[in-house]
Amino acid sequence: MATAPRIPKGTRDFGPLQAARRTYIFDTIRSVFQQYGFLPIETPAMETLDTLLGKYGEEGDRLIFKVLNSGNYFDKIPEDQIRGDNFAGLAGKISDKALRYDLTVPFARFVVKHQGELAFPFKRYQIQPVWRADRPQKGRYREFYQCDVDMIGSNSLRNEIELVEIIDQVFSNLGLEGTRIQINNRKILAGLAEALDAKDQFSNLTVAIDKLDKVGPDGVLKELEARGLGQKVLHFFSERLNSEEGMSLDALETLFNTAETASEIGQKGVEELRFIFNRIAPEDLKTSRLDFNFTLARGLNYYTGAIFEVIHPDFKGSICGGGRYDDLTGIFGLPNTSGVGVSFGADRIYDLLGDKNLFPETIGSPTQLLFINFGEAEADYCSRELKKVRAAGIAAELFPDSGKMKKQMNYANNKNIAYVALVGSNEMESGKVSLKNMQTGEQQSLSTDEMINLLKNN
Amino acid sequence: MATAPRIPKGTRDFGPLQAARRTYIFDTIRSVFQQYGFLPIETPAMETLDTLLGKYGEEGDRLIFKVLNSGNYFDKIPEDQIRGDNFAGLAGKISDKALRYDLTVPFARFVVKHQGELAFPFKRYQIQPVWRADRPQKGRYREFYQCDVDMIGSNSLRNEIELVEIIDQVFSNLGLEGTRIQINNRKILAGLAEALDAKDQFSNLTVAIDKLDKVGPDGVLKELEARGLGQKVLHFFSERLNSEEGMSLDALETLFNTAETASEIGQKGVEELRFIFNRIAPEDLKTSRLDFNFTLARGLNYYTGAIFEVIHPDFKGSICGGGRYDDLTGIFGLPNTSGVGVSFGADRIYDLLGDKNLFPETIGSPTQLLFINFGEAEADYCSRELKKVRAAGIAAELFPDSGKMKKQMNYANNKNIAYVALVGSNEMESGKVSLKNMQTGEQQSLSTDEMINLLKNN
Repeated sequence: MATAPRIPKGTRDFGPLQAARRTYIFDTIRSVFQQYGFLPIETPAMETLDTLLGKYGEEGDRLIFKVLNSGNYFDKIPEDQIRGDNFAGLAGKISDKALRYDLTVPFARFVVKHQGELAFPFKRYQIQPVWRADRPQKGRYREFYQCDVDMIGSNSLRNEIELVEIIDQVFSNLGLEGTRIQINNRKILAGLAEALDAKDQFSNLTVAIDKLDKVGPDGVLKELEARGLGQKVLHFFSERLNSEEGMSLDALETLFNTAETASEIGQKGVEELRFIFNRIAPEDLKTSRLDFNFTLARGLNYYTGAIFEVIHPDFKGSICGGGRYDDLTGIFGLPNTSGVGVSFGADRIYDLLGDKNLFPETIGSPTQLLFINFGEAEADYCSRELKKVRAAGIAAELFPDSGKMKKQMNYANNKNIAYVALVGSNEMESGKVSLKNMQTGEQQSLSTDEMINLLKNN
Repeated sequence: MATAPRIPKGTRDFGPLQAARRTYIFDTIRSVFQQYGFLPIETPAMETLDTLLGKYGEEGDRLIFKVLNSGNYFDKIPEDQIRGDNFAGLAGKISDKALRYDLTVPFARFVVKHQGELAFPFKRYQIQPVWRADRPQKGRYREFYQCDVDMIGSNSLRNEIELVEIIDQVFSNLGLEGTRIQINNRKILAGLAEALDAKDQFSNLTVAIDKLDKVGPDGVLKELEARGLGQKVLHFFSERLNSEEGMSLDALETLFNTAETASEIGQKGVEELRFIFNRIAPEDLKTSRLDFNFTLARGLNYYTGAIFEVIHPDFKGSICGGGRYDDLTGIFGLPNTSGVGVSFGADRIYDLLGDKNLFPETIGSPTQLLFINFGEAEADYCSRELKKVRAAGIAAELFPDSGKMKKQMNYANNKNIAYVALVGSNEMESGKVSLKNMQTGEQQSLSTDEMINLLKNN
């Protein structure tokens, strides 16, 4: 016997119930995107290495799944270049494409490639899997779906507001209460670096404060010191990180307007966030809360304005995130085209909804009626009645093999089928079926039309 | 400026209209699958090489896209084994997984892996992309979607009948008339090989007669001769290939019952097809025709019974195909589990529906209403009305930037938006909107509630 088949590390199979629940998540998200006027696009699973490399930082590059060229890919490489220590050189020659790492870079590439065919501002959504060679752990997979919604070709902060509404609507439609939409602005972070004489240490500064959730205020201070940030930074953060006050928009506004810590870009960041907060009152959101969090940084370097991260108190890690990028398409040859968007992590949302028992009970039992198979003559008869039932829009089946009643009833139970129809010689003669309600055990004799009516009103 | 971005050969982007049309195809197919009681599953894009290799023939193995191991994959390979002429050896060491080539083998692997959790017979559908490193040409892509429907764990020929009904229902729901469902049975081909003393040349025989469509009767005869098939075969086919009569089930039945050409397996094949044809009258099918075609062979070796191929007179190549496999799961350790299924080629169906103008006109213009943006105050006002419109289930937008009216009207036209709402200071005062019908140019003054009613009944 062959050994039990395995699947690649970090990937998953989805059985019927799981797949139906995933479809429910995708459909819910898609219908909100559509209600807000976003249009679908799809891009290939593979992109050229040129498109992907250098967009996600050094770490990201390492995590990209590269696809081998077809044919004998060593053919055209001179023998003396095929050596184990020539890893990087060889890798570049035997592979010229890879699996996409996210949907944002392929989207930017798409926009540049198809700019002539698109109406700007272009509002698109995209629901497709991405792949990352990350170390698998709970909530982190090597293949997972992203549900992205982006608006490109408009600088208006109304787009940011719309994204907040979309996030609130999606989670409220999914029945998930208490999500926290955290917002910050990269300009505020840039302003802080400027105000605190750490302009050339912007990256070190953001990496350190981004860890507040994990390591606490003291941890951040240690990290800042270790990364060589100056006294001005340390002094500022030792004062602010422990007080709610110190982290407010008001406090930052004062900071950026004070002579010795003045920052124009910081002021701009505060102003942008004010525009948003002035237009979203807490009561405007159905089930979410919008929080300013100036320690939110997000790793990707292409963000230039607002950044978002959505968390839920019952879940570790973010379930949605994104931000504004002023020049992502510039890399591909289309400069000055600002965009903003967020990505819903469908797999984490799936885990969270499962943990909290939030999937509707009806998901996963589409078949309403099973005809029991008592033999060829009965099955032929049932086939004809089955056609009428299906034509009425009711999902129904005939058990394909005649055989043990118990096996057939078990099949109905396992599939959560609500009714079974029993048709033997008596029923064939009378033109009626015996319809059994699998929940109550109740059985009644009905014509096919009567049965269809009953099932339709069920 | 960067060069225009490319995508890998044989792959495609899908813009909004294309993506919406593809979703329409998937949804139509899915709803038929569900009506027949099939349940969804999903498997990973990548499978281990062990799972895939050796299942699709030598040609298939070559066309599988292999994925490079992550990290420095040359690390553990001794230096003397890294040589250009050691292609096969090296390839096996730097890659242990690959993109799936079809959905049938992953399905068999899935069934074996999850046999304990499944209710048999297991009826599953699966709609996912597959990848093949084929030479791209019209209608042949390197990434394309398959929509598979299979029933495993039942020998009943009623499953074959159900598949014919599903095929007919899918194409009729898509508005495509005139599809021809061709059916044959591998047992008939095996019977022919036996009857004509060519039992050990089964593969050569099937490859040759499978070409009838392409090369005609004389071509097949030449091919048979070239492949070394004997006089008995040549005599038989020179008589039969030119006459409709000679290719009927009746003629084959006679052949397999005649002493010098007797074949038990051939008889079984005829009997199986008779069971199916006796239960599907031409008038039972909505828009398709079911044809017996004894030259249909299908390349994949795992088929053991009925085989299907669906063609349309206006399209080159098959748009759906499949068959029965008695022991596909055996390779993975679960013997004696017969299954049967077909796969719809969504990308070819897309091309065909496009050629014939069969997509519904409403696809691809989901937004019903656009609020024109006359400035911040007006936009703030419109945002509040927009919320009411969306809450009523109507897809609507506010143009994010105030600016040239012409640009905003163009946007509405490009997106096929049916109505635009114009709200200036007069409208804000009166609490009404000026609603313009983009088709007729007609404009009327309405309250938001009146507008919602009009849009809902539109």
